[in-house]
Amino acid sequence: MFDLNAYIINKNRQINVALEKIFHGSQPSEPIIEAMKYSLMAGGKRIRPVLCLASAEAVGGNPQAVLPVACALEMVHTYSLIHDDLPAMDNDDLRRGKPTCHVAFDEATAILAGDALLTLAFQVLSSVRVTGENQASGWLKIIQMISTAAGYQGMIRGQMLDMAAEGQHLTVDELKSMHALKTGALIEASLLCGALLSDARKQQMDILKAYARNIGLAFQVTDDILNVEGNPEEMGKAVGTDQLRGKNTYPAILGIDSSRRFAEKLVAKALAALEVFDIRAEPLRALATYIIERNR
Amino acid sequence: MFDLNAYIINKNRQINVALEKIFHGSQPSEPIIEAMKYSLMAGGKRIRPVLCLASAEAVGGNPQAVLPVACALEMVHTYSLIHDDLPAMDNDDLRRGKPTCHVAFDEATAILAGDALLTLAFQVLSSVRVTGENQASGWLKIIQMISTAAGYQGMIRGQMLDMAAEGQHLTVDELKSMHALKTGALIEASLLCGALLSDARKQQMDILKAYARNIGLAFQVTDDILNVEGNPEEMGKAVGTDQLRGKNTYPAILGIDSSRRFAEKLVAKALAALEVFDIRAEPLRALATYIIERNR
Repeated sequence: MFDLNAYIINKNRQINVALEKIFHGSQPSEPIIEAMKYSLMAGGKRIRPVLCLASAEAVGGNPQAVLPVACALEMVHTYSLIHDDLPAMDNDDLRRGKPTCHVAFDEATAILAGDALLTLAFQVLSSVRVTGENQASGWLKIIQMISTAAGYQGMIRGQMLDMAAEGQHLTVDELKSMHALKTGALIEASLLCGALLSDARKQQMDILKAYARNIGLAFQVTDDILNVEGNPEEMGKAVGTDQLRGKNTYPAILGIDSSRRFAEKLVAKALAALEVFDIRAEPLRALATYIIERNR
Repeated sequence: MFDLNAYIINKNRQINVALEKIFHGSQPSEPIIEAMKYSLMAGGKRIRPVLCLASAEAVGGNPQAVLPVACALEMVHTYSLIHDDLPAMDNDDLRRGKPTCHVAFDEATAILAGDALLTLAFQVLSSVRVTGENQASGWLKIIQMISTAAGYQGMIRGQMLDMAAEGQHLTVDELKSMHALKTGALIEASLLCGALLSDARKQQMDILKAYARNIGLAFQVTDDILNVEGNPEEMGKAVGTDQLRGKNTYPAILGIDSSRRFAEKLVAKALAALEVFDIRAEPLRALATYIIERNR
């Protein structure tokens, strides 16, 4: 039986060591670095980097070679959280059980720490040691995929749509399209980038894409459910906030039970997509189930 | 006699066409795109992209091949202006003669438009068509140089130091180090990236670095002087704001006349560095003088 918990702990340790190494030699007492590391090392679930490493393994690649991508993905994700939490956006005080970046430091520092993490992601991706032009092209492709997923055609567009929809009534389809951008695009990039460096075949990439789309959506549906009935202490952030803000969520539109069945159906589809993969895809299979069974 | 004005107009036209092309096919009515283009196309001086193109020409390269770098540099610069203007930072209402991004739109949109421009810069740099001579590793190096210059070891660090120094008394040396980061790093990257793609030799890169450091500082000294005695209408922004905020500036520390002499000395040094370059460096020579003689 595959032990997902041990797997996640092990991968998180590798990711944290790699992240710490990136800051090695810099002045930890500088406020900007303190703020960047405060949010980056706040004990997030590291779903995106773990998916990236698991994806590399699923297609027979070496997860060690993918570590810089895993770090960059976590930086992009953390930057987006820092900016989303700002007073001008979601105005959240608590994240991962700790005061949000702008509360712990100040608003200007939080804006710049987010900017700096986004910039550092691309610095990390462009600083890998490459041998040969083929490898260099692969890293360019990864930078392209992550920047496209994170940018105005992806994650940022999703955040704009999300803000515009507050207090409006969306259909389930509109909600899906919004989440496909807001969280789905970066999750998909995490899986595809992990496989891309491992010379995955076109068919494998298509499978990972289908898997990504289903678990990406399942992840969001579960986030919405947890915002209704999660335990704020376990989650490290406030619950019930979506309803207060008039946010469009799956529980609000479908009800809690239908939302849960919907998430289960999505995970079943993700698992079905992986069927042709061998035992090396066990981590991806277990992660799909974890995504809807987690309690934070 | 080299006609710098015609040169700048011609290069600006090329840069603007290239920038417009990047957004081709996207929905111009989407608020995020509107906000990005509002700031990007607001008629800035385009100093960084012009320096990048002129640098390519100075070492015998093809400026056309460098256009994506020029566009990315302007995006990074514009993002930094949008975020610097935010209420939590400099709280400026006017920029390039128009309301700043957060005034014209709202704060959340301005934060995201800045984020999106920074991200798009790396999308553009990683989406170039790579051919035999135009190698992937060269583009990776460019992404590394620009992200390093813009990040927590460069521009962002300079902005943090600038904010921390408000109301404090800096020495001229401290002021220089701060500006070397805040504006110098990206100006240096602009010049080096232009030459890098053109296979410049190590000696040429060293010369461009010396040129960059001197004009970068001269640019900032002139900015400070213009903030004291510039014409707000010509400049498209308020003047006298540095003194109001207790900012450390060259005029405040050295006085206006000494500041002007200091800027002149820096430009003379920049020109001396270029001495071994041939006629193809005329644009860079003229730009050095323009930087301290401009009135906006």
